[in-house]
Amino acid sequence: MKKLLVIGIGAGNPDYITLQAVKALNQVDVFFLMDKGESKNKLIDLRREICERYITEPDYRFVEAHCPERERGDVDYKASVDDLNFAKQQTYERMILEEMADGECGGFLVWGDPALYDSTIRILQAIQASGACTFEFDVIPGITSVQALTAQHKVPLNQIGRSVEITTGRRLAAGQVSDADSVVVMLDAHDSYHHVADQETYIYWGAYLGTPDEILISGQLKEVADEIERVRKAARLANGWIMDTYLLRKS
Amino acid sequence: MKKLLVIGIGAGNPDYITLQAVKALNQVDVFFLMDKGESKNKLIDLRREICERYITEPDYRFVEAHCPERERGDVDYKASVDDLNFAKQQTYERMILEEMADGECGGFLVWGDPALYDSTIRILQAIQASGACTFEFDVIPGITSVQALTAQHKVPLNQIGRSVEITTGRRLAAGQVSDADSVVVMLDAHDSYHHVADQETYIYWGAYLGTPDEILISGQLKEVADEIERVRKAARLANGWIMDTYLLRKS
Repeated sequence: MKKLLVIGIGAGNPDYITLQAVKALNQVDVFFLMDKGESKNKLIDLRREICERYITEPDYRFVEAHCPERERGDVDYKASVDDLNFAKQQTYERMILEEMADGECGGFLVWGDPALYDSTIRILQAIQASGACTFEFDVIPGITSVQALTAQHKVPLNQIGRSVEITTGRRLAAGQVSDADSVVVMLDAHDSYHHVADQETYIYWGAYLGTPDEILISGQLKEVADEIERVRKAARLANGWIMDTYLLRKS
Repeated sequence: MKKLLVIGIGAGNPDYITLQAVKALNQVDVFFLMDKGESKNKLIDLRREICERYITEPDYRFVEAHCPERERGDVDYKASVDDLNFAKQQTYERMILEEMADGECGGFLVWGDPALYDSTIRILQAIQASGACTFEFDVIPGITSVQALTAQHKVPLNQIGRSVEITTGRRLAAGQVSDADSVVVMLDAHDSYHHVADQETYIYWGAYLGTPDEILISGQLKEVADEIERVRKAARLANGWIMDTYLLRKS
């Protein structure tokens, strides 16, 4: 039997890793890394660093595969993600079949938590359902950028007894949000906070959370939205990539 | 200056603790523990165990205070929580003033993550705002029961590109939920999943997540709702307390 571990390594700060994840890292024979192109290479480097830092016996190996890109532009979002995941599924299948022996343990290192806006669990389930190869897998939770955001801003995620919605920039821009008074927005490439009607809404914004490059801005949208857009654009240019998230809180 | 650390210790499994939290534990001179009555003593014990297990130099001390109880029954929920938090605020204030010296570091150990359905951050902010005593504080994120739930069930929290709502049993029972296709329910003392109209909805339920007593049940509500109610009641009787949470996913 082959065993796979989907390991959440936390978002940003290497100390966000849990002891469970450290133990899991030390069981892995082969780590599968997905190359997402030059701008994301820093994230690959961070995964290698985490292995070096936390694995006691250096008897593990890396297998890198090129990660297919999602088709962008004027295409249906859900369909383009489905296509991407099917391509990824074929890549993962090939790696599990060809790059690990029976009895070995394979590892996927997931930024944040594998359950939140990550496709690894879904893809492994699809491979199992297809019957293409046999393996079992476990999931190790990790600190998400949502938790890094609230910790660094020192704010609660929810109001007393109230709900929290976690959503995407795409849905916020399309007005597809509930009336929850706490809304977390992830994967926002287009400054969608400008679409929030109530400009008295408070925003807690953070980029490169938990890293030495961390930037935090908070305030009412009417006061800080333009500043966030400016800072975000400059940081993205300077670093070649950006990972940011924010909490919107109605007053 | 006094320094306080609000440390998320994860939900259930002691290995859910992060390296950041372990480092934080080792800085603390005095841990403040809130006694919530006999049924919750197991949670106090777990906190002491975590200190014993992860602190290298045993030069720390515990201060226990009785935690006021929220008024239950036919009262306004928000008002009763506000009252409780005000009583807690006075307790915390007294502890910070009387039980720690200037230059010392105090620690609050929070089950799960301090940002999610926990009042410690809110109370410390209120004390700072009141000017009653001066201190600075930091927040250390921890693995929540939501993450333990999805990891143990090996399911994603969200559907592709969709939202997630995190809410309370109270709000679910009152019909105060959005139409998100993934809804996490916490703090449900009254089997509120029975109120979900669409009985084809899938439920992923878990109790004592990450501990040796863990129970997992999943399936369509029409198939498993009664089983969950029965198992939950029996487990609560047997253990004297229960901590459970669940994810509802529309088909």
